[in-house]
Amino acid sequence: MNKFQRKIIHGFQKQKFMGMLGARLGQLEPGKCEIVLPFKKAFTQQHGFFHGGVIATLADNSAGFAAYSLMEDGYQPLTIEFKLNLLTPGIGKLLISRAKVIKPGNRIFHCQANIFCVDDNQEQLISISLATIKSSKSVIEQ
Amino acid sequence: MNKFQRKIIHGFQKQKFMGMLGARLGQLEPGKCEIVLPFKKAFTQQHGFFHGGVIATLADNSAGFAAYSLMEDGYQPLTIEFKLNLLTPGIGKLLISRAKVIKPGNRIFHCQANIFCVDDNQEQLISISLATIKSSKSVIEQ
Amino acid sequence: MNKFQRKIIHGFQKQKFMGMLGARLGQLEPGKCEIVLPFKKAFTQQHGFFHGGVIATLADNSAGFAAYSLMEDGYQPLTIEFKLNLLTPGIGKLLISRAKVIKPGNRIFHCQANIFCVDDNQEQLISISLATIKSSKSVIEQ
Amino acid sequence: MNKFQRKIIHGFQKQKFMGMLGARLGQLEPGKCEIVLPFKKAFTQQHGFFHGGVIATLADNSAGFAAYSLMEDGYQPLTIEFKLNLLTPGIGKLLISRAKVIKPGNRIFHCQANIFCVDDNQEQLISISLATIKSSKSVIEQ
Repeated sequence: MNKFQRKIIHGFQKQKFMGMLGARLGQLEPGKCEIVLPFKKAFTQQHGFFHGGVIATLADNSAGFAAYSLMEDGYQPLTIEFKLNLLTPGIGKLLISRAKVIKPGNRIFHCQANIFCVDDNQEQLISISLATIKSSKSVIEQ
Repeated sequence: MNKFQRKIIHGFQKQKFMGMLGARLGQLEPGKCEIVLPFKKAFTQQHGFFHGGVIATLADNSAGFAAYSLMEDGYQPLTIEFKLNLLTPGIGKLLISRAKVIKPGNRIFHCQANIFCVDDNQEQLISISLATIKSSKSVIEQ
Repeated sequence: MNKFQRKIIHGFQKQKFMGMLGARLGQLEPGKCEIVLPFKKAFTQQHGFFHGGVIATLADNSAGFAAYSLMEDGYQPLTIEFKLNLLTPGIGKLLISRAKVIKPGNRIFHCQANIFCVDDNQEQLISISLATIKSSKSVIEQ
Repeated sequence: MNKFQRKIIHGFQKQKFMGMLGARLGQLEPGKCEIVLPFKKAFTQQHGFFHGGVIATLADNSAGFAAYSLMEDGYQPLTIEFKLNLLTPGIGKLLISRAKVIKPGNRIFHCQANIFCVDDNQEQLISISLATIKSSKSVIEQ
């Protein structure tokens, strides 16, 4: 395991919300992060689809860790803002969010995350998102 | 209880993800919806703040129900897209998202949700968001 | 004229695109900026309405100057990202964008701009927008 | 020239704002649209870079025409909302916005536009954007 992978895994484990959902890390590369979430009934909205909030959570988080993978030691990611389009209802066994850093910076990282729903090994793109992540020494500072 | 309130409450109860989080409805008016979420450790990111995904979930959902409150019978809300700025870390006992419809339409509802963190009865604005909600007869259709 | 107003006016005059459009500054307060644009046929899209790009230009720029009004000497505003909802077609004699800083920061300013179309002294809200503005010593640095 | 290309070209020519800027259409394919804008001093902000509003205008418009290329006869594109990240200052001889429809729909089209700045035949990605475009029979209806 690389140093940057250890950093991501360590950071991910500290996020209690990821534990509550049962999300896990997928493929990790410098500037890229995949988060995988198996379907549970508890994740649904009124029609039985993945709730938009669950999709947004993966989008935000995978973008944050993609940025984190490129940050210098001692810096932490903080999401400044993000936005997502929900292309089609998410129905399937698994959500996968694939994020990558489009433009790294000294302090500001621009990221894109595409979220797929997987069923019977078929992947369908269900959401596209952009996020702005800030590297921060002190987490309170803005 | 008004007819529109019953509709919102009924729709909210069908969202299993709201039940999983322990979110509840607050004040309801035509075109407005409040969702309240008491803090749990399970909602946190790596620094113990409310996770951005939790905040996004409330933003999306309160906007959707604000729009739903103005929709004709037989129509359901579907989020087309939303975006949020995270102004400052969310630390406190309670999250409250207050959404309102800025512009209702025949099919498209433009909404804004402001999310507050409450501690010792002090409210702090921690996120602002815009959402586009579609009214849909059939939920699959786009 | 206050010092902060002089700063805004000076910055505005250096923006050649504002000159090309014929936009002018409206009311200025610390953390707030109004930009006004009289209608020209040259600003229209295919149906004779104000082009979305014109509306976006005012939204972005008024947010940037609202943030600039709160920045320390020697710092310049740079837009990191912005987003806008177009509520209804813009038809009228004048566009007014009213921006305010929702959350100032050391480096990051979160702003909202509401854009109105004015006709026969009636104002109609036609767009809502959020913008993230960065204060920067060197304009190239990110 | 194909029927869909004629439709795009015809729609583009009716946009007076494109004429004012001197923008022209680039490559056109079903679901894709390129818009090209040669640099003028009149397009700049305070540091001599392409103004964010100019970049936003290309992003919005190329997305709209990409969606339009897939719409049935008698339908017109209307932008519901869009958002863009500005990755780095735009300096160069040419802006090119390349939009494509990520998910077409009956009424709602989700699009992405990437905007490049060209200098000495080198292209640099300077902005990424997402847009939601609606197909509309009557342009006023929403």
